[in-house]
Amino acid sequence: MKIVEYRVTPIAFSDPPLRAASGLHAPYALRTIVEVVGDDGITGVSETHGGDAVAADLEAVRDLVLGRDPLQLAALEQAIWPSSARQGGKGMEFWEGKLRSPPRTFGAIEVACLDLAGKALGRPVCDLLGGRVRDRVDFSAYLFYKHAGAGGSLGFENDPSAIGWAATCQKEALDGEALVEQAQAMVAAFGFKSLKLKAGVLPPEEEVRTIRLLREAFGPDMPLRIDPNAAWSVETSLRWAKELEGLLEYYEDPTGGKEGMAEVAKRTSLPLATNMCTVSFADLPESIRLGSVTIILGDHHFWGGLRASVELARICRTWGLGLSMHSNSHLGISLAAMTHLAAAVPNLTYACDTHYPWQAEEIIVGGKLQFEDGALTVPTAPGLGVELDHAQLERMHAQYLACGLKHRDDEIEMQKVEPGWKYVRPRW
Amino acid sequence: MKIVEYRVTPIAFSDPPLRAASGLHAPYALRTIVEVVGDDGITGVSETHGGDAVAADLEAVRDLVLGRDPLQLAALEQAIWPSSARQGGKGMEFWEGKLRSPPRTFGAIEVACLDLAGKALGRPVCDLLGGRVRDRVDFSAYLFYKHAGAGGSLGFENDPSAIGWAATCQKEALDGEALVEQAQAMVAAFGFKSLKLKAGVLPPEEEVRTIRLLREAFGPDMPLRIDPNAAWSVETSLRWAKELEGLLEYYEDPTGGKEGMAEVAKRTSLPLATNMCTVSFADLPESIRLGSVTIILGDHHFWGGLRASVELARICRTWGLGLSMHSNSHLGISLAAMTHLAAAVPNLTYACDTHYPWQAEEIIVGGKLQFEDGALTVPTAPGLGVELDHAQLERMHAQYLACGLKHRDDEIEMQKVEPGWKYVRPRW
Repeated sequence: MKIVEYRVTPIAFSDPPLRAASGLHAPYALRTIVEVVGDDGITGVSETHGGDAVAADLEAVRDLVLGRDPLQLAALEQAIWPSSARQGGKGMEFWEGKLRSPPRTFGAIEVACLDLAGKALGRPVCDLLGGRVRDRVDFSAYLFYKHAGAGGSLGFENDPSAIGWAATCQKEALDGEALVEQAQAMVAAFGFKSLKLKAGVLPPEEEVRTIRLLREAFGPDMPLRIDPNAAWSVETSLRWAKELEGLLEYYEDPTGGKEGMAEVAKRTSLPLATNMCTVSFADLPESIRLGSVTIILGDHHFWGGLRASVELARICRTWGLGLSMHSNSHLGISLAAMTHLAAAVPNLTYACDTHYPWQAEEIIVGGKLQFEDGALTVPTAPGLGVELDHAQLERMHAQYLACGLKHRDDEIEMQKVEPGWKYVRPRW
Repeated sequence: MKIVEYRVTPIAFSDPPLRAASGLHAPYALRTIVEVVGDDGITGVSETHGGDAVAADLEAVRDLVLGRDPLQLAALEQAIWPSSARQGGKGMEFWEGKLRSPPRTFGAIEVACLDLAGKALGRPVCDLLGGRVRDRVDFSAYLFYKHAGAGGSLGFENDPSAIGWAATCQKEALDGEALVEQAQAMVAAFGFKSLKLKAGVLPPEEEVRTIRLLREAFGPDMPLRIDPNAAWSVETSLRWAKELEGLLEYYEDPTGGKEGMAEVAKRTSLPLATNMCTVSFADLPESIRLGSVTIILGDHHFWGGLRASVELARICRTWGLGLSMHSNSHLGISLAAMTHLAAAVPNLTYACDTHYPWQAEEIIVGGKLQFEDGALTVPTAPGLGVELDHAQLERMHAQYLACGLKHRDDEIEMQKVEPGWKYVRPRW
């Protein structure tokens, strides 16, 4: 089995004006679709981060992909990473600093190769990762402070899965009460059994008040998470930790850096989760030594693919760390890959993050994947179990070319509604 | 694909009277052969540690194996390990103490399942581990002080691969000069490009003298290793480290325990290797924290199989540890599995240990695997690329029943030649 075609297609799709510590989501989110076609005519697909630089990185390794057997992944990884970077922390840190290009590039191709191999071998991708330990994967509601509107050119009007959600998700939500309404609509539509609040947007007192309102609205058994995205200082994190103890399932990236997180961890009983201070294997030795984090929010898009993520899971078991899953704005191909990974990892015991309910557009045949009681059923079809809709791919690529965005920049977007706004960290 | 038959067969085969810190090898080495048969009639095989207890552990999980798809490995592992043992160090340490039964039991079945799956999917096992990063795997000569004889019922008389080795390997070798002769015969027969001396047998001065003689005989470019199997105190280890600096590729388990090894590591420039103070994932956090070891000698037979060993390799890359491979007395099925693993692991850059040249008998069709320039070619056939010889299996099982050995006990064997001999650690 050999790869005879390799296609890298940048796309854009509607994204609502969601707020984060980094600013404001633009009307379009950018992603990249990777296709590898085998000499048997079977196509494997994957989805990763977007923008020109990501696509250029993927284009740059074309010669390493063409002619390769899709199961020869370690050799591909070795070819994409300079060999010096593979042997220890130093080299890896260098590359991690450079936008984490090698693990992201390799990971995107790896997922497409596993989809191709799975289809060719008649096996779902999770079976190539050790098999499934669960048939359903729980996801968490992802709540955002936001401005009015659904972003881009398309809302949820045509999405039958979003009945009850279509109207609410377009509303402005810039205080605790609006967030409770958003949470209720999201839970009613998708059945999520845990709630994550994207914080670091409003002053901490309002965000902590939002958590209290969510606790009141959903009762004592709904797991709650808050993610200030490192917008808070150590002192602010500790001050609000006192208010949040007993209220949270975990406290995600209240402050920045391994040292800062370790300072907070020492002085709160809240488990600290991260997708910011520990985002690569090179970060782990120091994070573990300092005690910066109790739960790693993995993400196969930047940790180096699905097999690397299974390896990360072993590290979490070995060092007694928890494991859950981070998400960016994404479509159904990423969601399917996340679901296969979560199916294969015994210690992925927290509901995974996903932006998916915020995306009305879809690029897979059959439209959006459907949550049931907040969970997705792990596909049993060969490969990822989803098929690329080429008409949608073409449309979203045209949208990419037309929208004018070439990389994500939440700061510039925020300046459009608040001139002079600057991304500072910590803000509070 | 479902497993419809599961066979566990204890076997015994001739083993020479090799000396180690633990005493003397008995005339027979014990192993266990595992077979899983799929509903398509394909059989997967593996080989693991021997004796009644190992076979009983494997028999005890029969119901977990039958009916299972051979790629559903994470679920099998989860079923074999109590779930509490999977989540952190504590539970695992408990089980590790109990003869490491769960990882060994799971690992043996996992390899057989991967052989079965590989055959069913038309893929060599290394392709199910990430693919091959090398086509040849280097092994190291494994030198032993020994008594005269080849052990058991069979010598090397019928083994065409052992021309030139057949006579020498049966000789007594209880000093440095004899070890040099042994090394020369082994290198001439198999082409090994590094030499490991099993030490902890004679007083350290004689063993260090042996290393010096090997250095003189083989020149400055032959990597040398010494393995006293923790027979030396910290002080003895440090005293002889001074003599060995500049002579060794690595210093393997000079002394026992994580603290002892860390003490030695702090005061020598020699890289410390281990297959004794760090033998499970549960050992890693403390070993790494203390700095007990610079090179892990992995072994899929007790680390929990091939996938677990790939995960161990990621941990070694992440923490900047070296990785090589430990071996017990074994036959060709284990050797094939080791070769597939080594083929798939980018950072397995040291030549692997193997006892294989000491075993005249073989259980695979076609007889013993052939080293060329000290390396094995990675099989390209589906599965492990070796087939069980059922006539040999029957014969070696009968030999198991007849030989009277039910577990390895080097101390009792040593007492037969030196009454009252006791295994003490450290001896020097």
